[in-house]
Amino acid sequence: MFLPILFVLCFRLSSSDALDFCVADLKAPQGPIGYACKTSELVTVNDFVFSGLREGNTSNLMKAVVTSAFSAQFPGVNGLGVSVARLDLAVGGVVPMHTHPGGSEIIVVVRGTIMAGFVSSANKVYYKALRSGDVMVFPQGLLHFQINAGKTPASAYLSFGSPSPGLQVLDFALFANDLPSDIVKTTTFLDDVQVKKLKGLLGGTG
Amino acid sequence: MFLPILFVLCFRLSSSDALDFCVADLKAPQGPIGYACKTSELVTVNDFVFSGLREGNTSNLMKAVVTSAFSAQFPGVNGLGVSVARLDLAVGGVVPMHTHPGGSEIIVVVRGTIMAGFVSSANKVYYKALRSGDVMVFPQGLLHFQINAGKTPASAYLSFGSPSPGLQVLDFALFANDLPSDIVKTTTFLDDVQVKKLKGLLGGTG
Amino acid sequence: MFLPILFVLCFRLSSSDALDFCVADLKAPQGPIGYACKTSELVTVNDFVFSGLREGNTSNLMKAVVTSAFSAQFPGVNGLGVSVARLDLAVGGVVPMHTHPGGSEIIVVVRGTIMAGFVSSANKVYYKALRSGDVMVFPQGLLHFQINAGKTPASAYLSFGSPSPGLQVLDFALFANDLPSDIVKTTTFLDDVQVKKLKGLLGGTG
Amino acid sequence: MFLPILFVLCFRLSSSDALDFCVADLKAPQGPIGYACKTSELVTVNDFVFSGLREGNTSNLMKAVVTSAFSAQFPGVNGLGVSVARLDLAVGGVVPMHTHPGGSEIIVVVRGTIMAGFVSSANKVYYKALRSGDVMVFPQGLLHFQINAGKTPASAYLSFGSPSPGLQVLDFALFANDLPSDIVKTTTFLDDVQVKKLKGLLGGTG
Amino acid sequence: MFLPILFVLCFRLSSSDALDFCVADLKAPQGPIGYACKTSELVTVNDFVFSGLREGNTSNLMKAVVTSAFSAQFPGVNGLGVSVARLDLAVGGVVPMHTHPGGSEIIVVVRGTIMAGFVSSANKVYYKALRSGDVMVFPQGLLHFQINAGKTPASAYLSFGSPSPGLQVLDFALFANDLPSDIVKTTTFLDDVQVKKLKGLLGGTG
Amino acid sequence: MFLPILFVLCFRLSSSDALDFCVADLKAPQGPIGYACKTSELVTVNDFVFSGLREGNTSNLMKAVVTSAFSAQFPGVNGLGVSVARLDLAVGGVVPMHTHPGGSEIIVVVRGTIMAGFVSSANKVYYKALRSGDVMVFPQGLLHFQINAGKTPASAYLSFGSPSPGLQVLDFALFANDLPSDIVKTTTFLDDVQVKKLKGLLGGTG
Repeated sequence: MFLPILFVLCFRLSSSDALDFCVADLKAPQGPIGYACKTSELVTVNDFVFSGLREGNTSNLMKAVVTSAFSAQFPGVNGLGVSVARLDLAVGGVVPMHTHPGGSEIIVVVRGTIMAGFVSSANKVYYKALRSGDVMVFPQGLLHFQINAGKTPASAYLSFGSPSPGLQVLDFALFANDLPSDIVKTTTFLDDVQVKKLKGLLGGTG
Repeated sequence: MFLPILFVLCFRLSSSDALDFCVADLKAPQGPIGYACKTSELVTVNDFVFSGLREGNTSNLMKAVVTSAFSAQFPGVNGLGVSVARLDLAVGGVVPMHTHPGGSEIIVVVRGTIMAGFVSSANKVYYKALRSGDVMVFPQGLLHFQINAGKTPASAYLSFGSPSPGLQVLDFALFANDLPSDIVKTTTFLDDVQVKKLKGLLGGTG
Repeated sequence: MFLPILFVLCFRLSSSDALDFCVADLKAPQGPIGYACKTSELVTVNDFVFSGLREGNTSNLMKAVVTSAFSAQFPGVNGLGVSVARLDLAVGGVVPMHTHPGGSEIIVVVRGTIMAGFVSSANKVYYKALRSGDVMVFPQGLLHFQINAGKTPASAYLSFGSPSPGLQVLDFALFANDLPSDIVKTTTFLDDVQVKKLKGLLGGTG
Repeated sequence: MFLPILFVLCFRLSSSDALDFCVADLKAPQGPIGYACKTSELVTVNDFVFSGLREGNTSNLMKAVVTSAFSAQFPGVNGLGVSVARLDLAVGGVVPMHTHPGGSEIIVVVRGTIMAGFVSSANKVYYKALRSGDVMVFPQGLLHFQINAGKTPASAYLSFGSPSPGLQVLDFALFANDLPSDIVKTTTFLDDVQVKKLKGLLGGTG
Repeated sequence: MFLPILFVLCFRLSSSDALDFCVADLKAPQGPIGYACKTSELVTVNDFVFSGLREGNTSNLMKAVVTSAFSAQFPGVNGLGVSVARLDLAVGGVVPMHTHPGGSEIIVVVRGTIMAGFVSSANKVYYKALRSGDVMVFPQGLLHFQINAGKTPASAYLSFGSPSPGLQVLDFALFANDLPSDIVKTTTFLDDVQVKKLKGLLGGTG
Repeated sequence: MFLPILFVLCFRLSSSDALDFCVADLKAPQGPIGYACKTSELVTVNDFVFSGLREGNTSNLMKAVVTSAFSAQFPGVNGLGVSVARLDLAVGGVVPMHTHPGGSEIIVVVRGTIMAGFVSSANKVYYKALRSGDVMVFPQGLLHFQINAGKTPASAYLSFGSPSPGLQVLDFALFANDLPSDIVKTTTFLDDVQVKKLKGLLGGTG
């Protein structure tokens, strides 16, 4: 077929022309917006598929686990403005106060009951018990939490408006590193004994 | 307590200061980025919660239903760069070829098996059968589809990197309106009989 | 002149300071927003000039040709949020249904008469016969088309709000690759004979 | 047809759902990104078509005219990230030094010869004589100019990566308003006589 | 002068054409990006000038005060992507742990010595004592703090990459509202007595 | 402590996961948005601190100096949407007409009196004498200036809504390079003698 080929050549952009997608090359340096792109010739369907979003292991202090499909785990979402994660909460499980500096989050509860909420810049609190099928949105950068509010395990899918929203867990930021206890106390008003207790629990020093 | 109040006043921004969120006022005019914001004093937790993402009714021609929580249905996501939807596919169900002009999509399969795929600008096809727990991303604006590839109903949650990603279903765009048959034929290479058959099936005129 | 030089040094940023432009280094890896920048010392005026937007050869099946000055052809536009192309339509020529996933388009007709239109997410059709001097805009990601509606050749300049808007031609996406005929039929409602006819015409397999 | 209608209802978003476009309501207040949107029910194809980009009248001091199709003249481009204009230069015509604060520009010369150029932040000059068919890009916010370099009238189409790129003509900014001559002199190093001459020519005061 | 006026008319955009700026109309509804614009005819130089960034009163519990020139206080910055504030710290003063959900911050110390720092998503701590003239950047959305580390009052200017960066002070978010103590404890690991003590100090209930 | 570590592992993202920041690798190629990121393992607090914003030397023709902390000087701000600079004006000092193509600017006067202003696209002038403590905003891409309006030295801090806003000084763009005098005259209406005088003063050729 001579004419069709000519025609296709006239209109078709080569695969390197268009930035339909930018599968992350995890070994290349990042830029401010994300990873450099894997050469398009090497991209296969498997770059766009992620099979790691299974039920996680909640055998830990918090009885909770978040399994992420951000660009570092799921290179296909790099540059595409969206990512997902899965949350599993055992009975009594909790995702403690945290923020995502780089994107808003939507939770879709798919099992059990989850008490979820966030605090606004105006210090107003918005929280509610969510049943399976309920959806809640947590605006970018605000402190929020999720607690298993039922007597059975709970699970949820999380959507983010960024391929790499980040995650800053309050207790880890304060107590799981070498930030000096004096600074923690001064900047949080917490008592010395409280700071030291949590630093001990979470492996912090200083 | 006198001092704390003074202090809080010094640091706290009033609720109208910060654009933490912008719950859509669906009755006000939209702007290029989305809806105007509901007065913050009137915002309650219910603006951030959506309970309509239940299993949909697949008793239709396609044996499929997409239930959306975009800003028009879920005003809390307005301006936040993310939204979700739920897909239910009966046995034999299909979401036909479509695009989302305004955002990329991630599908998380939670029941059954779904054959999903997209076509790039370079006309390369990426498709795969996804089982429960599998995730796939469809880059913004590209044609993609989902087919129930199993012998049981299938369901999935969809995440979008926009509060209002739009949805253009190919067959509806071509056959379910008054676009003249002559134009459809000329711009798609489809035969006259094919165009008229589908216009009849989907309620198009012209 | 001693003082002027001192002064210029005080205010002038070196050429590597400012991101006035980012001429594409087509051989370096791309990132999510575009190509890496050519070293500024090597940039000349010719990087900002493109001379390939001449009348194209319409001796093909569609009697149409689009000549693009996107960042892959015209590296100077990389990162600058705009690009152009030229459309030539012989008598009877047509640019079939297509989308630009990454940017809106404006057509300026400069010769002949072109019937152009697009379909919205709401499946509403907007089309009109454009004469020389007329302008029409096609919003990002929506299906649109251009047909020579006159008895003489027609030409137009196209402007895009992206240096790399992409181009997905519907018929090529469906019929000019190895997407299995069964999937095409299931996701488009087209008849088997129609799918096979167009796959044959456009060089598709499967 | 009962089933098709049901189906279409399941998938189709109402016209107010999706922000495919946002035709400017020129009488409503603007926001930081552009105009509020005209009610979608009132939008017709004519909102997306502009017929004012004809050859302009060059009977003026500069022997030049720029005819714009920005969002204020062409409401359909509001929010879409692109706009166009037409430039006509009589023999001896010139578009004096100017900037577009809000977007980059591409010129496509369609008649005659135009000497065009820009100056970078590093004070490096990039200029070239462009013949019909030649294209040049001027990065956002940088001083640039166009001069009819031939012995016949010249014309060009201009593309902008913004629906409202703005236009600041250097001489008008300095001399066609009430900025006091003393301030002009101090901030430009121009001589008093030069400032007053140009203020007189361009109708400035002060 | 006839010709100049003609000429100016040909090139000059009317004040409503270009979105050079969008001075906030604080009484109109906001959109996702900020306030609607004040009518340009009513804009004066005073809309672009703010005189409230004087030394603040540090007679409060924290011996600290932040005076903001965000778009709610300084309407001229609306839509312009930048804002400023002033920080005054008496001896012993502290700005407790807080985040700005909507923008990064740069501090320029102009008096005294300030110990400042932030914690990354990876829980790594970056802090340093800054002397007058030193500058430090705090990336968007991350917990950070400032402490007067000297024996004299300290002051600093703060720059933000948003006209409305928001401000969430950790202690106020946790203790100065009606978030139930049980939820605070569960989501922070703090002891009951600690939570109640700080709720009492900061005026919280529940 | 076994459980805490497990827990931290479950929630904590590795330092390469999140794009909290992107300290510029000044030796790597830039992209359209800025520099590539320094490897996060090598980042220290010093990457976020800049100590070069001291009082500058005003012993030059303009009796003025701008000291910048843009991403090229202060790699920590790369990708963060904000940067700062310091302005020192001796008695009689002036920052001549200039633009920042890539970002808006806020000036905070901290010493002396500065007459500052800008010209809009509509050629309207906004200027005012600013005293210490006063703040003024200059919208992106518009011509603006600062003059020491007092009898003592003046200083100010400048904030920009971009890590690399660029700087185009009008006189340098016109007179301090090899742009031919004929082009300067034609595109500015300046007299030949004026152009040559300033080219001589500022070191230009041509």
